[in-house]
Amino acid sequence: MKKKKEKVNAAILIIGNEILSGRTQDKNTAFISEWLNSKCGITVREVRIIPDVEKTIIDNVLILSKKFNYVFTTGGIGPTHDDITSQSISKAFKVKYEYHKEAHNILEHYYGKKKFNDGRKKMARMPKGSKLIYNPSSAAPGFVIKNILVLPGVPSILKSMIDNCRRYLIKGSKTHSKTLNLFTVESNISKKLGQIQKKYKKFVDIGSYPFFRLGKIGVSVVSRSSSQNKLKNVYKELLSLAKSKKIKVLKI
Amino acid sequence: MKKKKEKVNAAILIIGNEILSGRTQDKNTAFISEWLNSKCGITVREVRIIPDVEKTIIDNVLILSKKFNYVFTTGGIGPTHDDITSQSISKAFKVKYEYHKEAHNILEHYYGKKKFNDGRKKMARMPKGSKLIYNPSSAAPGFVIKNILVLPGVPSILKSMIDNCRRYLIKGSKTHSKTLNLFTVESNISKKLGQIQKKYKKFVDIGSYPFFRLGKIGVSVVSRSSSQNKLKNVYKELLSLAKSKKIKVLKI
Repeated sequence: MKKKKEKVNAAILIIGNEILSGRTQDKNTAFISEWLNSKCGITVREVRIIPDVEKTIIDNVLILSKKFNYVFTTGGIGPTHDDITSQSISKAFKVKYEYHKEAHNILEHYYGKKKFNDGRKKMARMPKGSKLIYNPSSAAPGFVIKNILVLPGVPSILKSMIDNCRRYLIKGSKTHSKTLNLFTVESNISKKLGQIQKKYKKFVDIGSYPFFRLGKIGVSVVSRSSSQNKLKNVYKELLSLAKSKKIKVLKI
Repeated sequence: MKKKKEKVNAAILIIGNEILSGRTQDKNTAFISEWLNSKCGITVREVRIIPDVEKTIIDNVLILSKKFNYVFTTGGIGPTHDDITSQSISKAFKVKYEYHKEAHNILEHYYGKKKFNDGRKKMARMPKGSKLIYNPSSAAPGFVIKNILVLPGVPSILKSMIDNCRRYLIKGSKTHSKTLNLFTVESNISKKLGQIQKKYKKFVDIGSYPFFRLGKIGVSVVSRSSSQNKLKNVYKELLSLAKSKKIKVLKI
């Protein structure tokens, strides 16, 4: 039974030496976080990037699983020796690491019996009791166990699977955001901005981010809130702050 | 006194709601990690991305500070209300959050006395006892306290400052890497690859990453080790694996 909840949060656990070493740029964090907020009203509160080391995976899965409503892992569920996410999660929860019948069938059908070798069979093994996250692009499914959703690391494959996570998630309230781009420097508005933030402390988060655009420097003031009304009020105050300081607003 | 050490590690703590929400793509992790390994022989073992929340910053700084030789933080040292990294780190180590005389002088000189307003003055405040990391692009310095190196979030500014971190770091042994790109699928080589990894377990880390290039799919086999000799041996074994399976090698 899905119930409308006020605040639902999640963590992302990126598993992979290639991200930690700087060889590969992580693109999954921004994608998952954006998707979770816009489609499910779930806020990502922490991201960790860790190496393909069993003990590290186990420790982090257990810590994050307790701390957040959901944990999304990416990476380490392929056919090679360095793909140890599924085994490690089995160990974390002390459940058997075994063939999932449906996953086995899906993969056998996809590759054909002859080409369904040991490496590929490995992708059908997961913690006992897992539920599948179907993979429309390359067959090998992800899975859900407890509050952990296990996804692959390749961004294009992950993207094709993300909608299939939705059935396992309780919806929260979406965080809306509104951005005002001002042609000024942060220190020119920091005092007043702090006052506005203080006034709306409980309802709106205001962030300030310098930008360089059209050959000029400026500040993006991003307000975020689950209440669109409060957001409108803050936006009005920001506009009058800009007016009072004769700051040009960038219209996009 | 700098001493040549065998293994030196670090963590990166990315502080900022804009990264967690997916609004901004983090680019600092890959840059810092690559720089630390190639210039200082330091391996990044964990990355965390957290929101601009005081308690969260304090908790993570203390945990990572104990666990790793160095911690690099990015973000939250600008002039606005949401920049709370410096105050939070002061609280974490229970030291005063105060004006750093040299930082104050640098900023006053950069902006001129008249334009050195409260927002800008804030950037001269840091934990008592901090040492400066000079900033050649926009003046506002980062700082070092205990084993924490505090840097800004804007990638171009961070990049301009990174070389000024070097004086505070003990050098470790660099991790070398060698990549072999094979036109095959992972499951075709996974068994043999696992055997090679097992053989060189103590010295070399072998990772396997699917790629799509020139309209074909393939696998990048990345070997990483502090020993270049061991790396050569593994590379030879990988080449003969490719030969025995008649796999085409991508030359780049």
